[in-house]
Amino acid sequence: MESKVSLIGRRSQKQMAFGWLPGLQVVMAAVAVMVGLSAFAAVAWAAEDAGSAPSARPGWALVIHGGAGTIVPDAMSEEDEAAYRRKLREVLDLGAAMLEDGRSSLDAVEAVIRAMEDCPLFNAGKGAVFTAAGTNEMDASIMDGRTLDAGAVAGVKTVKHPISAARAVMGHSPHVMLAGEGADSFAAEQGLEIVPPDYFWTERRWKDYLRRKEESEKESREEGSGSNDEHGTVGCVALDRNGDIAAGTSTGGMTMKMWGRIGDSPIIGAGTYADNASCGVSCTGHGEYFIRNAVAYDITALMKYRGLRLEEATRSVVLGKLKDQGAAGGVIALDREGHVSMVFNTAGMFRGFITADGTAQVFLFGENEGESAGN
Amino acid sequence: MESKVSLIGRRSQKQMAFGWLPGLQVVMAAVAVMVGLSAFAAVAWAAEDAGSAPSARPGWALVIHGGAGTIVPDAMSEEDEAAYRRKLREVLDLGAAMLEDGRSSLDAVEAVIRAMEDCPLFNAGKGAVFTAAGTNEMDASIMDGRTLDAGAVAGVKTVKHPISAARAVMGHSPHVMLAGEGADSFAAEQGLEIVPPDYFWTERRWKDYLRRKEESEKESREEGSGSNDEHGTVGCVALDRNGDIAAGTSTGGMTMKMWGRIGDSPIIGAGTYADNASCGVSCTGHGEYFIRNAVAYDITALMKYRGLRLEEATRSVVLGKLKDQGAAGGVIALDREGHVSMVFNTAGMFRGFITADGTAQVFLFGENEGESAGN
Repeated sequence: MESKVSLIGRRSQKQMAFGWLPGLQVVMAAVAVMVGLSAFAAVAWAAEDAGSAPSARPGWALVIHGGAGTIVPDAMSEEDEAAYRRKLREVLDLGAAMLEDGRSSLDAVEAVIRAMEDCPLFNAGKGAVFTAAGTNEMDASIMDGRTLDAGAVAGVKTVKHPISAARAVMGHSPHVMLAGEGADSFAAEQGLEIVPPDYFWTERRWKDYLRRKEESEKESREEGSGSNDEHGTVGCVALDRNGDIAAGTSTGGMTMKMWGRIGDSPIIGAGTYADNASCGVSCTGHGEYFIRNAVAYDITALMKYRGLRLEEATRSVVLGKLKDQGAAGGVIALDREGHVSMVFNTAGMFRGFITADGTAQVFLFGENEGESAGN
Repeated sequence: MESKVSLIGRRSQKQMAFGWLPGLQVVMAAVAVMVGLSAFAAVAWAAEDAGSAPSARPGWALVIHGGAGTIVPDAMSEEDEAAYRRKLREVLDLGAAMLEDGRSSLDAVEAVIRAMEDCPLFNAGKGAVFTAAGTNEMDASIMDGRTLDAGAVAGVKTVKHPISAARAVMGHSPHVMLAGEGADSFAAEQGLEIVPPDYFWTERRWKDYLRRKEESEKESREEGSGSNDEHGTVGCVALDRNGDIAAGTSTGGMTMKMWGRIGDSPIIGAGTYADNASCGVSCTGHGEYFIRNAVAYDITALMKYRGLRLEEATRSVVLGKLKDQGAAGGVIALDREGHVSMVFNTAGMFRGFITADGTAQVFLFGENEGESAGN
């Protein structure tokens, strides 16, 4: 279950390693259904370094997610599937060009997430879902693994790019986290692009909202409100040529979430964490569990304190702790050697990575799609 | 530097152990001034168990803080000092009576923090400080170490007892964290006591606000806004007779904080964490650093993953990591054996603990006050 993407060497031999043997996977999927999850799948990529060249220019790497959930081929049109693959690849290339040019991981993370916020396919920015009150309230956070500086906004309604508002909080305020109108007002003061609330209205999310509202009027509030079948939170973790890691996450939250609900995405330590000494992490899933388990920080702690490798740490949390609690979701992570991990306990997760040696791969589902989706 | 308060036996031999030798303390205080902290002091209490009685009724323990900062005898009137000591002792006794009666640690934590929220001596509830906008915006969180359930509210303006709103979020919503008007509105729906915003006006905090406002108008915004000389956040961690740990924190935040600023107090993993498997923690200090370092969770991680004892874990974070970053503050913590830790890197911290064997102590400053303040 080794997972290494070494950036030092130039020649790479790609391998695909799956987390579960096929037979075991069926058993685990059955168990998963019993505990309320759709399926378990853990995929580990390994591009084993075949040689090292100490004088080579330092590498870089970037990994993204666009949400985890019941993402299965049968429930997705070919058109949608192609659109997701295209968009994921497009934003990977955007980040790659910046990192190749020597730009910082923070810049790349912000730019990649902005591009995903502009795309209505994802539940962030333009594609944000609706709250129970029929509004869009967005959350985002960003963290600099070199300095441990961080910024976050929660419940913003008018900032076109919540991730940039989070970065402005980090860079231009004495605080780490601003919420609500105070955060919108700060973003405006900082000269960020402000849009009318109806900018965030999309037909697809509005229909989701109306459907979910109808469902919850039929069901009791207790039963209806905890459901978590929406997905589309976006995240990015990058390592730049200076060896600095940054991580960011942006979301519209849960469809039908209560007014004022804050999930894990804007919480440093829960949805996002970055520390050059261990790794960078961005999460997606049932946010309440990710908060209770301090998931992003926990992965760094397992590396720092228990000496786990990146992939061991992510798997231990996502396939161990979270699975045991019935908590659906996934994480992307990346360490300073450029090892990349994308682990989820749901049927699928929109995801991909790109590295300095030219490896770029995009995946939606739990199966091995590497050969067709890679470049 | 052992620190144990065993609950199993009945006879205890109290000891006071200081974190720094007197000479070293002077050196460290000088270093502290250089790095922008007023002084370092670490105090560890030890009541070594002299015998064990396996058939004895299980014990309990409760520890509180009322904020850390430049709390020094010279800057405090005798009257104020007596008032703090009296109040700390009073709320310890309140929690103790509940735990003695077999009530849950969650109930005790909520009741103790409610009592502190009612007292204008502390920066929580009735004594909350003012934001830059001249309003009171309060944060609170609570966590159940048995189930890892948690609840938090941020930026509430009308709930008389923010800690009870946090508990209602935990018990009666599908979410962990609610912010702003959504949180106030939820608290009202839940039948919690709602008060007009001017309930939170106190002359002392208003004068602080006016003074700080004047200062910040003189200084540039950058310089003025990061200062952290206010204190008074409250917290409580308790262990009940069932062996369950709970922790909670409540605050008015920083004087002159920006509108919408969320500190560490309502963030599970930063200001508050509880896990029966390791310990419960409540923090106070410069919240931005406590968020970036996921302080409360980090202490549990050091115990779980690195095998540190409670006191080693709290000291490592507060006197190591936070001190190195120039981050002022302190923590209280308690593990399931009833070991209690109260560690801070500021001049003082309002604090105290009480245990089933009748030990009760209250402290304000960095020095050894145990003999006069204990019962």
